[in-house]
Amino acid sequence: MVQILIVGGSDAGISAALRIRELSPEATVTVMLADDYPNFSICGLPFYLSGEVPDWRKLAHRTKDDIQQAGIRLLPNHQATQIDPNQQQVLAIDATGTEIYLPYDKLILGTGAVSQRPPIHGLDLPGVYLLRWVGDSFQMQHHLKENAPRSAIIIGSGYIGLEMADALTLRGLQVTLVGRSPTVLKTVHASFGEHIAEVLQQHGVTVKTGTSVERIEWAGAQLKVSGTQVSGTQVSGTQGFAAVGDLVLVAAGAVPATELAQTAGVTLGHQGAIQVNPRMETTVPNIYAAGDCVTTWHRLLQTDTYLPLGTTAHKQGRVAGENAIGGDRTFAGTLGTQVVKVFESAIARTGLREAEAKAAGFNPITVEFETWDHKVYYPDAHPIRIRVTGDAHTRQLLGAQIMGHYQGEVAKRIDIFATALFHSMTVDQLNDLDLSYTPPLSSPWDPVQMAAQAWTKQSVA
Amino acid sequence: MVQILIVGGSDAGISAALRIRELSPEATVTVMLADDYPNFSICGLPFYLSGEVPDWRKLAHRTKDDIQQAGIRLLPNHQATQIDPNQQQVLAIDATGTEIYLPYDKLILGTGAVSQRPPIHGLDLPGVYLLRWVGDSFQMQHHLKENAPRSAIIIGSGYIGLEMADALTLRGLQVTLVGRSPTVLKTVHASFGEHIAEVLQQHGVTVKTGTSVERIEWAGAQLKVSGTQVSGTQVSGTQGFAAVGDLVLVAAGAVPATELAQTAGVTLGHQGAIQVNPRMETTVPNIYAAGDCVTTWHRLLQTDTYLPLGTTAHKQGRVAGENAIGGDRTFAGTLGTQVVKVFESAIARTGLREAEAKAAGFNPITVEFETWDHKVYYPDAHPIRIRVTGDAHTRQLLGAQIMGHYQGEVAKRIDIFATALFHSMTVDQLNDLDLSYTPPLSSPWDPVQMAAQAWTKQSVA
Repeated sequence: MVQILIVGGSDAGISAALRIRELSPEATVTVMLADDYPNFSICGLPFYLSGEVPDWRKLAHRTKDDIQQAGIRLLPNHQATQIDPNQQQVLAIDATGTEIYLPYDKLILGTGAVSQRPPIHGLDLPGVYLLRWVGDSFQMQHHLKENAPRSAIIIGSGYIGLEMADALTLRGLQVTLVGRSPTVLKTVHASFGEHIAEVLQQHGVTVKTGTSVERIEWAGAQLKVSGTQVSGTQVSGTQGFAAVGDLVLVAAGAVPATELAQTAGVTLGHQGAIQVNPRMETTVPNIYAAGDCVTTWHRLLQTDTYLPLGTTAHKQGRVAGENAIGGDRTFAGTLGTQVVKVFESAIARTGLREAEAKAAGFNPITVEFETWDHKVYYPDAHPIRIRVTGDAHTRQLLGAQIMGHYQGEVAKRIDIFATALFHSMTVDQLNDLDLSYTPPLSSPWDPVQMAAQAWTKQSVA
Repeated sequence: MVQILIVGGSDAGISAALRIRELSPEATVTVMLADDYPNFSICGLPFYLSGEVPDWRKLAHRTKDDIQQAGIRLLPNHQATQIDPNQQQVLAIDATGTEIYLPYDKLILGTGAVSQRPPIHGLDLPGVYLLRWVGDSFQMQHHLKENAPRSAIIIGSGYIGLEMADALTLRGLQVTLVGRSPTVLKTVHASFGEHIAEVLQQHGVTVKTGTSVERIEWAGAQLKVSGTQVSGTQVSGTQGFAAVGDLVLVAAGAVPATELAQTAGVTLGHQGAIQVNPRMETTVPNIYAAGDCVTTWHRLLQTDTYLPLGTTAHKQGRVAGENAIGGDRTFAGTLGTQVVKVFESAIARTGLREAEAKAAGFNPITVEFETWDHKVYYPDAHPIRIRVTGDAHTRQLLGAQIMGHYQGEVAKRIDIFATALFHSMTVDQLNDLDLSYTPPLSSPWDPVQMAAQAWTKQSVA
């Protein structure tokens, strides 16, 4: 009876456990996790903090009971501290503080990531928050409930920064968003970033780009802003940036959590993540790893990247689980497909941006195209903007970005591009796809295809 | 200077003309059409009749001016009556009733389809309508405005029947929908059809299935229904069906319009449509045809079908246009991808249904799966049902059907399946696709992938 030990109870760990349970009634599966919240949708935390999801328990993909009833042994509040790859056991501190050893035949590491702590003075002041795990959200929620802050400063203009700007605005706070990159959401093109900034501003968010925050200080009741006495936390940085808020959120990205893995002597790869092969094997025998702690194979770049995403964690966990019990699956690779909702807008991307494509040796041409998300004569049509990047020589599709109304099927339109990318289609070939149409939902040529036609026209001219 | 003559000013004809204009500044392009409404979105007629689109002019994809400014010569109100393939000319009756000859180097036929006239007694009575062309909608609109009918009987439970049941209900009429097939919308599985019937009934539509209408009669003020004197039109048929309505719509499908083509001696194929090859060439030299009047190559069945759809007409028109000026494009084939909105529901399909797959020699297994269109903790999640059909031996994806809320990205989710079908993916491979996720719009495994996983589980067991 093979013993599978999984460290980490989030997307990768639970996906691995479920896959094993699906395929093998014999294997024993134990999932050890550091906190008390297995299988939580951490992507949902902004919506808990916004008030849209009143009860945090609803964020569980599955309850503890669900998981245990599926035949998975759960060890919450267990902190794994060391791996002994020779003895094939893991040392952990259990919920009572006692050291225990857990043996394994196969070990799967799904230790995830931790919030990046940028070099800012004052990160540990009260009222300054990071947001990665369920526990982080409790701290911020407590502050929101107890102290009813009226203003917030968000440091970082990536996905979580944007979602939290939306969330805290919805909750009635006056939000300032400050980020280092020249436009918000640097994973999409600047023209989209500028448009997102407009959306934020329309909803009352103050947006400051191209600015590095350097200091966070407790302003007490000492500080005067425009002649008025204010209390709170002052955030200052380059470009003369200075703002005072009752709450500060640092959303500067994620760093792979590899401390435990390193005790086993695994090799680290891109951005310090655990190096894995397409079978999700680490460099140490019988140890697999998946999710936000590992390097991720990029299907287009044909290299490793670090791209911590829930979708990828689920896929990699499933592959690791299957292989841990003797299967032979490989992870097909990421395309960097992502979508985010910011107020009523949705912004999505897949594949490579122009600059990424150039750096990878392609000859990219990018065309931006705007149309309506469905026939404009039918009520509630919204503009939809699509950027298509393709290779000038091979005409291969390299990437796409879409921005539109969140009910304008932006997310699943990017998925048409993602599916096309998966199959290395040319941009021109997109016109051969038999896509669905009815006037309230699309056009006879879907906007995806209209954008492809615009690309074809411009790239030939 | 090559002369291209196009007969038909709807999707296929105009697409061909635009493609020629795009590729060749030299060719002359003339589009002759029987009515005065070139490039109208006839798929939009139900929304004009519902009142959602108050001005019928808005249904034009492009105005006459747009088309002429693009360098396309338009001849509206010209009825083409005969082709002389030897002299390479078309005889037509112009707007003044005069016979004229129009020469061509290449001729493209986009004559479309006409409404099927089922063998029902009384089809030509006043108050009985067909709906295919813009002119048809004017007649019905006139009746709706002048006589303010309070009730309607729709014969036919296909796409147009369902859309018109929605449209006329929205307009305040009491609607009865009667169809021959055992469930409505026979192009999707019966379980979906039953659910659509429930949606219709919830909105006050009376639904009668498995019933052939035999007679339409003018009831005058003579008829008594449940003891009450009523006027209007009586519709009766099998299963003891009898209903009285102020308006009758016959929506029994479409028949290819091939009369003109036959004067050139073209071969007809499947369901009497004009036989074309993948280059959209008819069997007569220098004559191309595209759209609702031609046979359509089915990518999965690898045979000709007859499937008149706007999306296909656009694609075929584009191919015909390009080839007419010396290009070398082929039509990639249909997958039968379709979507329809009925009240707040959307129902979509692509590929083969179980029965179609069996008839074509596959070994289909179908699994129906229900989940939410996005994470259920986020507001406004709606159920989404997905049916996946795959081959038990090769595990190849054969088809899919989705039913859910019309804002639940049903349409573009079917397009993920359609793109997968285009590339002959297996059902299992769908799990390798890097699809987008954010809690308000999807799940870490998109419902498309969850359904694939359900299929895999059941098809192995």
